[in-house]
Amino acid sequence: MAGILVGVGVGPGDPELLTIKACRALKACDLLVLPAKTKEKCYAYQIAVQAVPQLAEKACLYMDFPMIKDQKALDAQMDQNTKEIISWLNKNENIVFVTIGDPSIYATYHYIYRRVVAQGYEAKIISGIPSFLAVAARLGISLADRDQQIHVIPGSYDTENAKDYPGTRIYMKAGKSLAHLKAGLQREVESGKTLEVYAVANCGMENEKVMIGLDVLEEDAGYLTTVIVK
Amino acid sequence: MAGILVGVGVGPGDPELLTIKACRALKACDLLVLPAKTKEKCYAYQIAVQAVPQLAEKACLYMDFPMIKDQKALDAQMDQNTKEIISWLNKNENIVFVTIGDPSIYATYHYIYRRVVAQGYEAKIISGIPSFLAVAARLGISLADRDQQIHVIPGSYDTENAKDYPGTRIYMKAGKSLAHLKAGLQREVESGKTLEVYAVANCGMENEKVMIGLDVLEEDAGYLTTVIVK
Repeated sequence: MAGILVGVGVGPGDPELLTIKACRALKACDLLVLPAKTKEKCYAYQIAVQAVPQLAEKACLYMDFPMIKDQKALDAQMDQNTKEIISWLNKNENIVFVTIGDPSIYATYHYIYRRVVAQGYEAKIISGIPSFLAVAARLGISLADRDQQIHVIPGSYDTENAKDYPGTRIYMKAGKSLAHLKAGLQREVESGKTLEVYAVANCGMENEKVMIGLDVLEEDAGYLTTVIVK
Repeated sequence: MAGILVGVGVGPGDPELLTIKACRALKACDLLVLPAKTKEKCYAYQIAVQAVPQLAEKACLYMDFPMIKDQKALDAQMDQNTKEIISWLNKNENIVFVTIGDPSIYATYHYIYRRVVAQGYEAKIISGIPSFLAVAARLGISLADRDQQIHVIPGSYDTENAKDYPGTRIYMKAGKSLAHLKAGLQREVESGKTLEVYAVANCGMENEKVMIGLDVLEEDAGYLTTVIVK
């Protein structure tokens, strides 16, 4: 009998934003997969261990998920990681792969999940609170009312095509592209648009930073910065 | 000293998808606001009471939030509801307003939140898992990888302008408009597009129904149906 792989979303930073279901899976597992080189460097682990202190006693597999755009090299690495995870599933270990935010939004977990399922093993997904919801709660804003739309845009890719979307735009993990994004938003304002701009870096963490207004948006606020434009 | 109002997202249906933070707020409150006429008719209450059985003992305020598009009548009703909530805050009652999914996405709570904050009272928001994340987890699909975008579209309004968005489209609470939405998607397929269509009604509830493919999308699947198009 083989073990089961579960991808658990641990939310954006506040350990109290883990779900009951996530806590139960974390407590029950035999082995943790951390997409990092050490526990200290793994945001998801650092969030989860505050909610479930027993994690500190669990065996961990540290895995490299390089942030590269070379598809062939990425595929080879994912195949290798999958092989290692399957070797543990074959020993009947129940494995949890921790992921920041939610496992269905820009999450590395899906690369592994697809491969594991394709090879006939059981794998699951447990939802987590994505950063943009915690940011909206922190700011006290609604992302959409009535007929409004919401658009989620990965901030580290081209963001230009998003400028004409109606409703609310959410730029995630804008990171190094914040200067580019800010310049684009400034051009929109200069062309006569009225924009509400909000940003939160490291929402729910000790180093959380709230920025309201385009002028105060810092260009080096960091990888875990969510920008909301209405 | 006045009490505090907290809007709590209880997720889409599975009581285990409540967060630790939501459970703590529900346990601690003095008074519950239910946007319904009875407990039995309140989805949010029915989900929450399974996670926090102590809710059954709490005092409840039942409030009418009519689904109308007449802004003036809606405003008058919201003003009246706010007045009632404030009368309880003035008695130092800590109040939780339960909301299905997340309180920042198409949630009635924001109408009350804005008014309460504008009148100088303290109010908070606790995020919940929105239906589309639970649906993605249930189906084992990713909503976005790498440079893909996500678009959330209220299914009961005009959905035509969404058909050219790149990436993943999520139609929420399509309800009575499912026939209209299905016809629009069929026209896209006839024009030569390849679409992946997924839908889940009542995700995480006893009467959950999963539909994969445009052909099996039922036109009367119900109000709490989320449609995902990739």
